[in-house]
Amino acid sequence: MTANTMNPSRTALLALSLALAAGAAHAAAPAAPAKGRTMQQVLDASQPGDWRELDPRNTIYLELERGRVVIELAPQFAPEHVANIRALAHSGYWNGLSVNRSQDNYVVQWGDPEEDAAKRKPLGAGAKAKLPAEFARKSAGLKTTVLPDVDGWAKQAGFVDGFPAARDSASGSSWLTHCYGTVGAGRDMAPDSSNGSELYVVIGQSPRHLDRNITTVGRVVQGMELLSVLPRGTGALGFYEKPSERAPIVSIRLAADVPQAQRAPLEVLRTDTPLFAELVESRRNRRDDWYLQPAGHINVCNVPLPVREKKG
Amino acid sequence: MTANTMNPSRTALLALSLALAAGAAHAAAPAAPAKGRTMQQVLDASQPGDWRELDPRNTIYLELERGRVVIELAPQFAPEHVANIRALAHSGYWNGLSVNRSQDNYVVQWGDPEEDAAKRKPLGAGAKAKLPAEFARKSAGLKTTVLPDVDGWAKQAGFVDGFPAARDSASGSSWLTHCYGTVGAGRDMAPDSSNGSELYVVIGQSPRHLDRNITTVGRVVQGMELLSVLPRGTGALGFYEKPSERAPIVSIRLAADVPQAQRAPLEVLRTDTPLFAELVESRRNRRDDWYLQPAGHINVCNVPLPVREKKG
Repeated sequence: MTANTMNPSRTALLALSLALAAGAAHAAAPAAPAKGRTMQQVLDASQPGDWRELDPRNTIYLELERGRVVIELAPQFAPEHVANIRALAHSGYWNGLSVNRSQDNYVVQWGDPEEDAAKRKPLGAGAKAKLPAEFARKSAGLKTTVLPDVDGWAKQAGFVDGFPAARDSASGSSWLTHCYGTVGAGRDMAPDSSNGSELYVVIGQSPRHLDRNITTVGRVVQGMELLSVLPRGTGALGFYEKPSERAPIVSIRLAADVPQAQRAPLEVLRTDTPLFAELVESRRNRRDDWYLQPAGHINVCNVPLPVREKKG
Repeated sequence: MTANTMNPSRTALLALSLALAAGAAHAAAPAAPAKGRTMQQVLDASQPGDWRELDPRNTIYLELERGRVVIELAPQFAPEHVANIRALAHSGYWNGLSVNRSQDNYVVQWGDPEEDAAKRKPLGAGAKAKLPAEFARKSAGLKTTVLPDVDGWAKQAGFVDGFPAARDSASGSSWLTHCYGTVGAGRDMAPDSSNGSELYVVIGQSPRHLDRNITTVGRVVQGMELLSVLPRGTGALGFYEKPSERAPIVSIRLAADVPQAQRAPLEVLRTDTPLFAELVESRRNRRDDWYLQPAGHINVCNVPLPVREKKG
């Protein structure tokens, strides 16, 4: 086959086939090479116990005009912020507000765009105006799947309950890492100036320098493509300069407040299983024949965290 | 100031102010702390010799309906592919073709979407149908600014002529790293099946596993926000399922073929200077008061590569 006669779609399918999210169709399904299974083969071999249902008490739905973004909250890392976010979602605080910022290769951010504090929407009775900073927590009590790979930003990186995380044995602390899809609570200069009403999502290269400098509250498990394509704002830091550019928030609801039939029946892959370790290895050293040079390394922010519709 | 009275825009400006691209306005310009200069302060202190003009023979303009994407080619890493890309641009090969793929957190890709090889647009007289794979090259002859920070994917990572790159002393080879904005040439199963007519750009977390598995040809120096917001394709690997979804390519031209008055008069920061080393350090350990926990580390794909309009 000469390059000139390549089928471009097929080329790309083969060329970058392992970029597939879990469950997407393969153009060609190669047999398992002796050297190990591909990610898809690992997932195909998963058992029900390798998956975990999202807890509706820890799940919020951000409804944009084009669809739903599903966010899993991490109360084990930011209990006070998560409690506030639950309260804000329950009261409908964000409904009618907007995504006000989209900065390329960095974050989108939503909340009340009102500049005049006096005119801002009240948080409502159930939410606190002031919270403690929750940048990190004690590692004790967390079940961490540590990657053997060097991280650079932290002494150890890995996964806690399905969230990318890191920890430091010297300080005995753990924190969620800023990866693509990580959700955090914007703050002012004071460390304790976030209350969860202003949230951002990472849409670019992992900004790990934010780790332990701001409160992270969860991660997007589905619908990132709705946030990542929002036009970039032309103001400083990607803020939209005109109100008409903002992306309206139809609603943000706690899944537990949504009728069962309207919920997203999602399961996420557990990160504390032998199967997950095999999945990581399938990405650390790609198994399909396209790869000539297995990387031999992976970063916590490069590990896919598969999500699927719950069966049955 | 209570969190409830925070001005959300100002909050964000302060909260994430160091995400600013070079030259963007700061909401507040803090005085230089004794501990070191911020990135903006470093850039403000730059001299003309710290910058380098883009060479019009190594620059292509991808014109989309919404604006121009400027790509710097790297002939020192992929001479044969760059020669082909120059020829394809010169002959107008891509004019009227389209961006056919947009996969979230991965790549956008353009070329001829035609599935039937017999119906595909001829490459034209100046371009070769077949090229050698150019995944890496000998390190000898390259001036590499090596980061002291551990990389994980490679023994050494840093910058060559303004491009993020890595090298391996055992093999004596160097290659461009897959970072946000890196441009590569799609290939089929055969390593030498790319010819530069099908190009992709990284729009997500650095897919470093592609390093040394595919030919990289350059990087986007301006206009990433035009590519990164393209709606994600719903087909496998992010291919658009309907032709109407594709983003038309108005033209791709070599800057040298464009009248001077229509060129983008851009300069990029040199990466082989003491000033650049100081810039990296300003990002490795953030200097402004917002940061409580300096990272003490940086990854090659997290270092901003400033671009500006040429003065005078």
